[in-house]
Amino acid sequence: MIGINPYFGRLRGGYLFAEIAKRTEEYQSRHPGKELIRLGIGDVTQPLVPEVIRAMHGAVDEMSREDTFRGYGPYFGYDFLVRAIIENDYAKRGVTVTEDEVFVNDGCKSDSSGILDLFSEDTSIAVCDPVYPVYVDAAVMSGRGGVFDEKTGSFNHIDTYRCDATGGFLPTVPDAGAGDAFRGVIFLCFPNNPTGTAIDRDALKAWVDYANRTDSVILYDSAYEAYITEDLPHSIYEIDGARTCAIELRSFSKTAGFTGVRCGYTIIPTDLKRDGTRLRDLWARRQATRFNGVSYITQRAAEAVYSKVGRRQTEGVIRYYLENARVLRQGLSERGFKVSGGVNAPYLWVETPEKKNSWAFFDELLEKCGIVVTPGSGFGAAGEGYFRVTAFGSWENAGKAIARLKDGGIQGNARRG
Amino acid sequence: MIGINPYFGRLRGGYLFAEIAKRTEEYQSRHPGKELIRLGIGDVTQPLVPEVIRAMHGAVDEMSREDTFRGYGPYFGYDFLVRAIIENDYAKRGVTVTEDEVFVNDGCKSDSSGILDLFSEDTSIAVCDPVYPVYVDAAVMSGRGGVFDEKTGSFNHIDTYRCDATGGFLPTVPDAGAGDAFRGVIFLCFPNNPTGTAIDRDALKAWVDYANRTDSVILYDSAYEAYITEDLPHSIYEIDGARTCAIELRSFSKTAGFTGVRCGYTIIPTDLKRDGTRLRDLWARRQATRFNGVSYITQRAAEAVYSKVGRRQTEGVIRYYLENARVLRQGLSERGFKVSGGVNAPYLWVETPEKKNSWAFFDELLEKCGIVVTPGSGFGAAGEGYFRVTAFGSWENAGKAIARLKDGGIQGNARRG
Repeated sequence: MIGINPYFGRLRGGYLFAEIAKRTEEYQSRHPGKELIRLGIGDVTQPLVPEVIRAMHGAVDEMSREDTFRGYGPYFGYDFLVRAIIENDYAKRGVTVTEDEVFVNDGCKSDSSGILDLFSEDTSIAVCDPVYPVYVDAAVMSGRGGVFDEKTGSFNHIDTYRCDATGGFLPTVPDAGAGDAFRGVIFLCFPNNPTGTAIDRDALKAWVDYANRTDSVILYDSAYEAYITEDLPHSIYEIDGARTCAIELRSFSKTAGFTGVRCGYTIIPTDLKRDGTRLRDLWARRQATRFNGVSYITQRAAEAVYSKVGRRQTEGVIRYYLENARVLRQGLSERGFKVSGGVNAPYLWVETPEKKNSWAFFDELLEKCGIVVTPGSGFGAAGEGYFRVTAFGSWENAGKAIARLKDGGIQGNARRG
Repeated sequence: MIGINPYFGRLRGGYLFAEIAKRTEEYQSRHPGKELIRLGIGDVTQPLVPEVIRAMHGAVDEMSREDTFRGYGPYFGYDFLVRAIIENDYAKRGVTVTEDEVFVNDGCKSDSSGILDLFSEDTSIAVCDPVYPVYVDAAVMSGRGGVFDEKTGSFNHIDTYRCDATGGFLPTVPDAGAGDAFRGVIFLCFPNNPTGTAIDRDALKAWVDYANRTDSVILYDSAYEAYITEDLPHSIYEIDGARTCAIELRSFSKTAGFTGVRCGYTIIPTDLKRDGTRLRDLWARRQATRFNGVSYITQRAAEAVYSKVGRRQTEGVIRYYLENARVLRQGLSERGFKVSGGVNAPYLWVETPEKKNSWAFFDELLEKCGIVVTPGSGFGAAGEGYFRVTAFGSWENAGKAIARLKDGGIQGNARRG
């Protein structure tokens, strides 16, 4: 018996960023001279910091000599990196994470889909709407999504928590005592991609309590924690009870500009069990079988992010992006747009003028201003009428983008209303 | 509803190399001063060649400047690497592969398990025995393996082609005309891990014909093709008909010492369709959703392997390992062992003395000689009574290993018989 995976056919359209790339290329072929301002895909633009560069050169040199050459590394990451992660990202915040709970990977994306391998096929999935599309697509591909319902704008086997302006773009915690309370895997991402919304301790505690009461597991994607500027939790393990219900995903992509270097990590506490089994043990087996670890050079680069010098340099880059966010936020607001995010996150979530269709506004902005954003509807039905702006461009382009909006006569609701 | 993946519980023991590592560590803690000779895990020991080092330093420098910095790369690999692969690994052998058929990855292991995502859950799986354990474990984890049958020594939903001395360690092609002919995904690896057996064009053609007649898909793992010294096919696409039935997996791990660098690639021909769908398109969607590409620095390193200088240097390293294989082969034969492999592959497949249990002989060899090999039974029931020796150590250690066998009084069957 041979057949193709029937669930691929249930996926919606192309992967969002592939579609954006396609439309952008098509525009560029029509306007070969035009300089684009890319505020679409969440990709960094600033180079790696000098301390990371230094560490990588050093690691490359080690690979050139027989006595310091490294072949296969430990499946779950080198001790030097695992220890640096524990010390800097957890111990310094008063959170205890042990070495056997850290799994170094090649970025959040791989594990945020791969983690579903741990669960039975009939495990229920819940996501926010809008949402990073990978969570949904990975669930659908693995047969856990059901079919797309045009009426609701979501997949019928995936519970969807709508995050809109009235709720401050935060999902409402369901009633754990309800007879039909959701019980399954809940994807949460804070600071949020795409809305840029951060969550406070009380709100996050409510989710942890819900998960513990219902035996649910939270996949907490905190890839953007480095952008938090206010007094908010950076890790879900800052919340009491999280060790029995939460897996945390982290990445160096946005923290240290590693989108082209590829490194992140996953934390699975040894206290997290379902059906009497430690999920950490299943993941260890899964990774040892399906993954061969991360480049030694990359791991030395990641380690350097935690050094005193590396941290100071990295924080400088983050401040740079946050300043872009401030400029974009202010400029868009002045053009009459309703803007949220951009304070504890590198993303701004912006209403389209008169709640215009997201892709139509994407095309308009590209055509009139040569600016690429991400259409909100690409993140789910609740994203319709919004667009996402990233602060990862250059400071010059942030200012230029605002000027182009003016030149293109583009303005938001508020000024007109 | 939440539950853990029930199929993990069906896996056999730990992942083979993790178990070897455990026993070896345990030995070392008992013999802290003893220098081990590691001929177990198939990991390279020679440093990266100078041309690769040069390319990596150059790429690291590019990452340090805003105008040459690279963020997210193309999902399926940079053009420069894709073109180098096509030109050197295929065009030079008269094989046509197009750019949209190449998928750069972080090594064979990820894709040799991930590729199962393309197929329905009831797709049948066939493997050789002995076999690289990842194929089997990935099938079992994804629910395609069935349950382990102690009597047959294999999983009841996985067809197993026994490769033993009588057949020259090659699998026998089943009868495609038989009513119950196997129809599914067939994993083939040549030059073979673990037996070191290579396949000739006629034998490979028989498998391609079988796959085309039965609508089966061959996953052809040719990670060791660089070790072929005789006139044998390096790629399955050298065989007529392979484009409609075969996916090829390649790796830089053993070709260029990239086990700690992580790069490989998968070829899926556009002609390969099942249920009317191009598998290439499904894989493109799968990778765009579940994978974020390979480090830019790594891809520049891989490109350098194909340069004139890089190739000459890399071939020098391969000759070095093949010379080790020759020394080990000769030394083991002289000690009375029955040895195969090691001519077109970096692996030797050796009968244990008096067909002794593989793990028992592993322990004996570790205890008496401080030599680590891989127990044949770790590769399947047909591997019982064998052990695998890798040629990836140093030349000094190859000679030393043979001397230690003598000192430890270890010898094979032939001399005694």
